[in-house]
Amino acid sequence: MIEVQLPDGSKKEYPAGSSAYDVAASIGDRLAGACIAAEVNGTIVDLNRALPEEGTVNLRLLTDRDAEALAVMRHSAAHVMARAVMRLYPGVSLAFGPTLSNGFYYDFDLEHKISEDDFPRIEEEMKAIIKEAEPFEQFSLPRDEAVEFCDGLQQALKVEHIQTGLAEHPELGFYRQGEFVDLCRGPHIPHAGKIKAFKLMSVAGSYWKGDAGNKQLQRLYGTAWFNKKELKAYLAQMEEAKRRDHRVLGKKLGLFTISNAVGQGLCLWMPKGATIRALLEDFIKAELVKLGYEPVYSPHIGRVEMYETSGHFPYYRESQFPPMFGHDAGQLVDVWTERLKNESLTAEDEAQFIETARRLGCDLDDYDPKYPVDDRLGTLQDWQHQQERYLLKPMNCPHHVQIYKAQPRSYRDLPVRLAEFGTVYRHEQSGELNGMLRVRGLTQDDAHQFCTPEQVEEEFRNTLDLVKYVLGSVGLENYRVQLSLRDPNSDKYVGSEENWQRAEASLRKVLQEAGLPFSEQEGEAAFYGPKADFMVRDCIGREWQLGTVQLDYNLPERFELEYIGADNRPHRPVMIHRAPFGSMERFVGMLIEHFAGAFPLWLAPEQIRVLPISDRFLDYAREVEKKFTAAGFRIKTDTRSEKIGHKIRDAQLDLIPYMLVVGEKEAENNTVALRCRIDGDLGSMTPEEAAARLGEEVAERRIRQVAESTFDAFDGEDEAANEY
Amino acid sequence: MIEVQLPDGSKKEYPAGSSAYDVAASIGDRLAGACIAAEVNGTIVDLNRALPEEGTVNLRLLTDRDAEALAVMRHSAAHVMARAVMRLYPGVSLAFGPTLSNGFYYDFDLEHKISEDDFPRIEEEMKAIIKEAEPFEQFSLPRDEAVEFCDGLQQALKVEHIQTGLAEHPELGFYRQGEFVDLCRGPHIPHAGKIKAFKLMSVAGSYWKGDAGNKQLQRLYGTAWFNKKELKAYLAQMEEAKRRDHRVLGKKLGLFTISNAVGQGLCLWMPKGATIRALLEDFIKAELVKLGYEPVYSPHIGRVEMYETSGHFPYYRESQFPPMFGHDAGQLVDVWTERLKNESLTAEDEAQFIETARRLGCDLDDYDPKYPVDDRLGTLQDWQHQQERYLLKPMNCPHHVQIYKAQPRSYRDLPVRLAEFGTVYRHEQSGELNGMLRVRGLTQDDAHQFCTPEQVEEEFRNTLDLVKYVLGSVGLENYRVQLSLRDPNSDKYVGSEENWQRAEASLRKVLQEAGLPFSEQEGEAAFYGPKADFMVRDCIGREWQLGTVQLDYNLPERFELEYIGADNRPHRPVMIHRAPFGSMERFVGMLIEHFAGAFPLWLAPEQIRVLPISDRFLDYAREVEKKFTAAGFRIKTDTRSEKIGHKIRDAQLDLIPYMLVVGEKEAENNTVALRCRIDGDLGSMTPEEAAARLGEEVAERRIRQVAESTFDAFDGEDEAANEY
Repeated sequence: MIEVQLPDGSKKEYPAGSSAYDVAASIGDRLAGACIAAEVNGTIVDLNRALPEEGTVNLRLLTDRDAEALAVMRHSAAHVMARAVMRLYPGVSLAFGPTLSNGFYYDFDLEHKISEDDFPRIEEEMKAIIKEAEPFEQFSLPRDEAVEFCDGLQQALKVEHIQTGLAEHPELGFYRQGEFVDLCRGPHIPHAGKIKAFKLMSVAGSYWKGDAGNKQLQRLYGTAWFNKKELKAYLAQMEEAKRRDHRVLGKKLGLFTISNAVGQGLCLWMPKGATIRALLEDFIKAELVKLGYEPVYSPHIGRVEMYETSGHFPYYRESQFPPMFGHDAGQLVDVWTERLKNESLTAEDEAQFIETARRLGCDLDDYDPKYPVDDRLGTLQDWQHQQERYLLKPMNCPHHVQIYKAQPRSYRDLPVRLAEFGTVYRHEQSGELNGMLRVRGLTQDDAHQFCTPEQVEEEFRNTLDLVKYVLGSVGLENYRVQLSLRDPNSDKYVGSEENWQRAEASLRKVLQEAGLPFSEQEGEAAFYGPKADFMVRDCIGREWQLGTVQLDYNLPERFELEYIGADNRPHRPVMIHRAPFGSMERFVGMLIEHFAGAFPLWLAPEQIRVLPISDRFLDYAREVEKKFTAAGFRIKTDTRSEKIGHKIRDAQLDLIPYMLVVGEKEAENNTVALRCRIDGDLGSMTPEEAAARLGEEVAERRIRQVAESTFDAFDGEDEAANEY
Repeated sequence: MIEVQLPDGSKKEYPAGSSAYDVAASIGDRLAGACIAAEVNGTIVDLNRALPEEGTVNLRLLTDRDAEALAVMRHSAAHVMARAVMRLYPGVSLAFGPTLSNGFYYDFDLEHKISEDDFPRIEEEMKAIIKEAEPFEQFSLPRDEAVEFCDGLQQALKVEHIQTGLAEHPELGFYRQGEFVDLCRGPHIPHAGKIKAFKLMSVAGSYWKGDAGNKQLQRLYGTAWFNKKELKAYLAQMEEAKRRDHRVLGKKLGLFTISNAVGQGLCLWMPKGATIRALLEDFIKAELVKLGYEPVYSPHIGRVEMYETSGHFPYYRESQFPPMFGHDAGQLVDVWTERLKNESLTAEDEAQFIETARRLGCDLDDYDPKYPVDDRLGTLQDWQHQQERYLLKPMNCPHHVQIYKAQPRSYRDLPVRLAEFGTVYRHEQSGELNGMLRVRGLTQDDAHQFCTPEQVEEEFRNTLDLVKYVLGSVGLENYRVQLSLRDPNSDKYVGSEENWQRAEASLRKVLQEAGLPFSEQEGEAAFYGPKADFMVRDCIGREWQLGTVQLDYNLPERFELEYIGADNRPHRPVMIHRAPFGSMERFVGMLIEHFAGAFPLWLAPEQIRVLPISDRFLDYAREVEKKFTAAGFRIKTDTRSEKIGHKIRDAQLDLIPYMLVVGEKEAENNTVALRCRIDGDLGSMTPEEAAARLGEEVAERRIRQVAESTFDAFDGEDEAANEY
C-alpha cells in the first residue's frame, strides 16, 4: 500500500500501482475529470503515472486553476501542432517544441515553407485531433533502441540529439498520441480534449540548437488556454502591445534610431528620446544626492586582467565584445620576438627590453635570459596575448571598486555610495536583439554601496524606498519583489554563514515592513549573495523585470577591499549592486509601450504647442512661446499656414499634452485658449494662469495618460524547461 | 647688387655676397650688435649668411625683442649644452637636440647616467663656453662625405639618421663651434655670447626616434632666455606650476585617480572631481538648451566601415584603439571556411550560409558558388577581416551624422544642432600621457551644427558668444583666437571655392565684430574647412589651447547628407564641429591648476563646512547643516573632537570656501559665525542671512580665488621644427 498525503494534510492509503488519477477518482468523479496533471513530491508528472511506492507521497492534484497545469497543456498542444503539420506536409523532421510563458513553439525541418496562409489549415487539423481526444501515452526505451526507433521514424535530428546531447541518458522517454510519437520528457495532459482554446501566432526562422552555423529551421509559434475568454483577453493584449510597439513609436515620434552603420543593438538617442532620458537621469540624480550617494565617472574600457580578477573574464566571454590589444607592449614584443628568432638580440638589448616591459606593466616572472630561446619565445607569445588587452566594460563594478580602493577607508566613512549612469556593453546574439529592450550597449542607473555587514539592512531599506519612489514617479505602482535566497543544503556560496543569515533575515524583514508583495526563492541567490528583483506590471498587464538589488560578498574578497573598523583593524566591506530602472534603454523602451508614446507632462519632449489660428497671430504666438520657454517649458509654435483644425489634429497625433490656441480674441485680451490632448478645450486664461496650472502638473509629476489594465500578467519569452 | 626691402618699406642696394649683418651694420653698429638672426623672404636664417641674389630681398632683422630670435638662441644653447656634456663625459653619441616652446633638450647615448647632481658641473662648463663667445660656423657636405665625416666623429646615430631618415638629401648642413660639430639645419646665433641666461631643468629617459623598440637614451632638458629677469620669472612660474600640479592636487583633494588595473590614461573621476564635472556639464547643458541645441546620446563604439566612410580609419589607426571583432559573422565564416576546405559544404548549406551572411549585413557581391574554391576562401577571409568589426569611437561626428540621417531634413529644420558630452578614446603613447591633460579616454563637450552655407556666419557668432560666456564663468577672460585659413595656392581643399570664400570672410567678420584678438594663419586650415582655436591664458600666464570651432565640407560629402531646400531640391549642408572646453578631462585638469585646487564657490565640491566649537554643539551644527542642504548647498559638518583652531586649519587646507563656526553664543541666538577661506572672519549672522549671501555668490558664479598673473605666456611642450 502507498500512503498519500494531500495539501490539506489528510492522509490515505492506496494500493501499489495507483496513479494520481486513482486518488482523484477516489475523492470524486468531478475532480478526476477536472485534473490535468499532478505534483508528486514536488515534481509535476502525468496524471496516470504510477505513484512511487516508498515513503509517504506528497500529492497535489492540478486542475485548470493551477499555473503549472497551463504549461503542461501547452506542451501537449505543441505535440498536437506537430502532429497536424506532419499530417499535412511530407518529410517533416522534428527538432524541439518547448513551451513559453505565453504559449509554445515547435521547430521543424521541412521543405514546404510555412506561411500565415497555412495557419487555418493547420488549425483545422489540430481541432480535429483535439476533438478525437486521444490519450498521451508514455513509454521508455534503452538508448540503442531509442536511436533505432527514431531512425525508423526518419527523425534524423532526434537521432543526432540522442547521440550527442543526451549521451549520458541510459534510457529515453517517448510520448505517443495516435500515430504521432515524440522523444519527450513530459509530462502531458491525459488526452488532447483538455486543450480548450488555441491559436497559431507566427512563423519565423531558427537554427538547429540555436547555432547560426547549423541548419536553418522553421519555428511555428502558438498559444493555448483553458478557455476561450482567456485566449481572447490574451489576443487583445497582443493587439494592444503591437499598437504600443516601442520600435514603431520610437521611429514615428523620433525618439531613437538604430543604424546599421553604427551597429545592431546600439541605440542612437535622438533629441526627443534623449530629452526623456536626461529628465529621468536628472530626476534620479537629485534623489541620489539627497540619499547621500556620490557621483563618479569611469571609462568604458578596462584592462582584461581586472576582469580576470573580478571573475567576469573569461567566464562571460561569450556575451562580451572581444578584447582589444594596446599598441605599446605589442610593438615592443614584436621587435623582441623577431630579434630573438633572428639571433640578433644582444644581451644589452634584452636587458633593456625587460626593463621597458616592466615599465609597461608586463608580468616578467617567467622570463629569464638564461632560459632556452623557445621558452623565451613562448613567454613572449603569452605576454602578447595577455598584456595591455582592454575589454569594453560589461559592468561598472570593477571600476567603482578601483575608486573605493583609491583612498584608505574607515568605518566612519561607510557606507560609501558611488553612483554613475554607466554605459556597459554586452554582445547579445543578433537574433535576440529587440529595439531598446534587448541591446548591445546599455546605460545602467548604477550604484555600488560599500558598507559594513551591520549596515546592509538600512541600505536595503533606503534602496527599496528609492525604487518605490522612482517607479511611482512614472506611474508604475504595481509590482512585486522576488527575493532570491541560498540553497541551505549547498556549499557553493561565498561569504560567512553568519553574514548570509543576517543578510537574508534583513532583506526579508525590510520587505515585510515595507508591506511589499514578495516571494522567496530558495536556491535562486547568486553564489556571491542574496538578491531582490522587481517585477513591474505595466498598464496592459505585462510583467517586466526591471530593478535589482544584489548583495555581494565576492568582489570585496577578490579585490581585497578593506576598511579600518572601530577596533583599528582591517575588515572586509559588503558590496551592494543596485539599479532601480535596470537600464535607461530598457526602461525608456518599456515606458514608450507603457504610455503608448503619450508621455506625462513632466517627461514629454514637447510639452506644449502654440497654434496660431492664422499667420496674423504669429507674433503673438511667439510672444506666448517666449513666456513659456522662460518659465522652463519645452514648447514650440506651429508656424505652418494650415487651418486650425489641421494643426490641432497634428498636435494630437504627435501626442503633445497641451495646446495653446491663439487668435484674434486671445491676442487682444492677452490670453490663450488652453487645450488638453485628453480633456479637450479647457477655456481661456492668461498665459501666466496656464503656466501655473501646467507647472503644478509637472511639479507633481502627475500621470494621466495611462489606460487601465483589464489583462492578466504575461511575461516575456522564457523557455520552460520541459524539453530534454 | 642686391635690392633689400626692410619691413618699413624702405629699399636699399647692397653688393652681392652681403649678409643681413652687413645690412644691420650699414644702419648702425648698435643694431648690428643687437641682432640675433634674420628673416629673409619669410625664412629665419643665420645673420651672416649671404643674402639671395635674385629679386628684391624682404629682410627683417631679429633682435632679442623678437620671439623668433628666442628659438634660435635656445637651439644654440642646446649645442652649447651638448658641447659641455661631451667635454665632461667620454663616449657621447648625439641624437637630436631641438628647441621647445619654453627651452630645449638634447638626447644623448652615453654610459654615464646623468643625474641632477651633475647639473652644476655641466652648467659651469656651459658658462665657460659662453664666455669664450666663439662663433657658430655653417658648412655643408655631400651625403657620402657627410656620412664619412660623422663616422670619423664616432657619431653612429647621426650616421644612421643620414642613411635612413635623410636619404633624399643630396647635401647636409653642419655647424661648428670650436671643437664641437653637429649635423644641423640651423639657424644659429652669431656667437655663444648671445646666450644671456640659462638653466638645466631635468633629465629623463627617451628612445632613439621616439620608438620604444629602439635604444634608450638620456634626455637633458634646459631653458634659456635673453636676460636674467626673464629666466627668474620663468623659474618662478615653473615653481608655481609645480605647486599647482593637477596630478598632485587631484590626489590630495580626491578629485580623480588613475588605476593601473583599469589602464593608463583612463581617468576615474572620484566623487569630488565628478561633482565639479557634473556642475560644469549641467551649466553648459542649460546654456545649450537656450541656444537651441538638442541633446543626443550615442554609443561608444561603431562599425569600422563607418569610420572608413568618414575617413578616420585606417588613416588615424595608430592613435586609435584597435578594432574588436563581433562574434556572429565570425562564427559563421569559421564553419563555412572549414567546410569549404574539407569539401563537406553542400550546395544547400552554401545557399543557406549566403542567406544568413546577408542577414548579418555582410557584403556578398564577390561571392559566387560558381567560383573556384580558392576564390571563395579568399572572399571569406576578406569578410572575416571586414565584417562586424567595431572601433572604440575616436570621435562623435559619425554618430551624430547617423542621427541627422535618421529622418528627412528640410531647410526649415536647419540649423540642426546635436549636442552630447561624448566620451571618445584615442590611444596616445604611454610616454605622452599626463594626468588629466593627456589621456586615452576624453569626454568632449561636443556638438555638431548642420546648417546651410548662409547660416555659417550666424552659427559661428553664437558659438563664439557661448565660448566667451562659458570661459568667463570660470574666470578665464584672457584669450586669443587663431583663425586657420586656406593656402590660396593649393588645391587640396574640399568644398566649393564660393563656400570657402564666404566662410572665411564670415569667420573674419564675426571675430572683428566680437572685438576679439585674433591672428590669421594662411595654409593652416584643415583640408575640410577653416577653423578657429581658442588659446586661453591661465592665472599664471600659461597659454592653453582649449575650445575649437571647425567648419567641415567633407563629412557631409562623404556621408551624402542632404536637406531639401526652398527650391524643393536636395542640397548639401555644412557641418560645424565645436567644443568650447575641448574635453572635460583637460578642462578640469587645467582648472585645478588655474585655481590651484581652490575652486570658486559655485564649483567647490564641498562649499561649506560647519565647525562646532565642541561636541556639545553637534546637534545645533547638524541643524545648520540641514538648513543649508535644503537650500541646495554642498555642506558637511566636522564632527571630530578636535580643537576649533585645528578644525579651521584643516578646512583651510582642504580649500573649503566657507566655514560656519558654531558654539554657545551661536546656538543660543540661532546664528552662525561665517568665516571665509580668503577673508577670514565675516561676523555673526542668521543661517538664512549667510545662505542668502553665499547663494548670491553662487548665482553670480563669482571668482575670487585666483592669483593675478605677473608672467608672460609659455606654452606646452611642442617641438619646434628646427631639427632635420
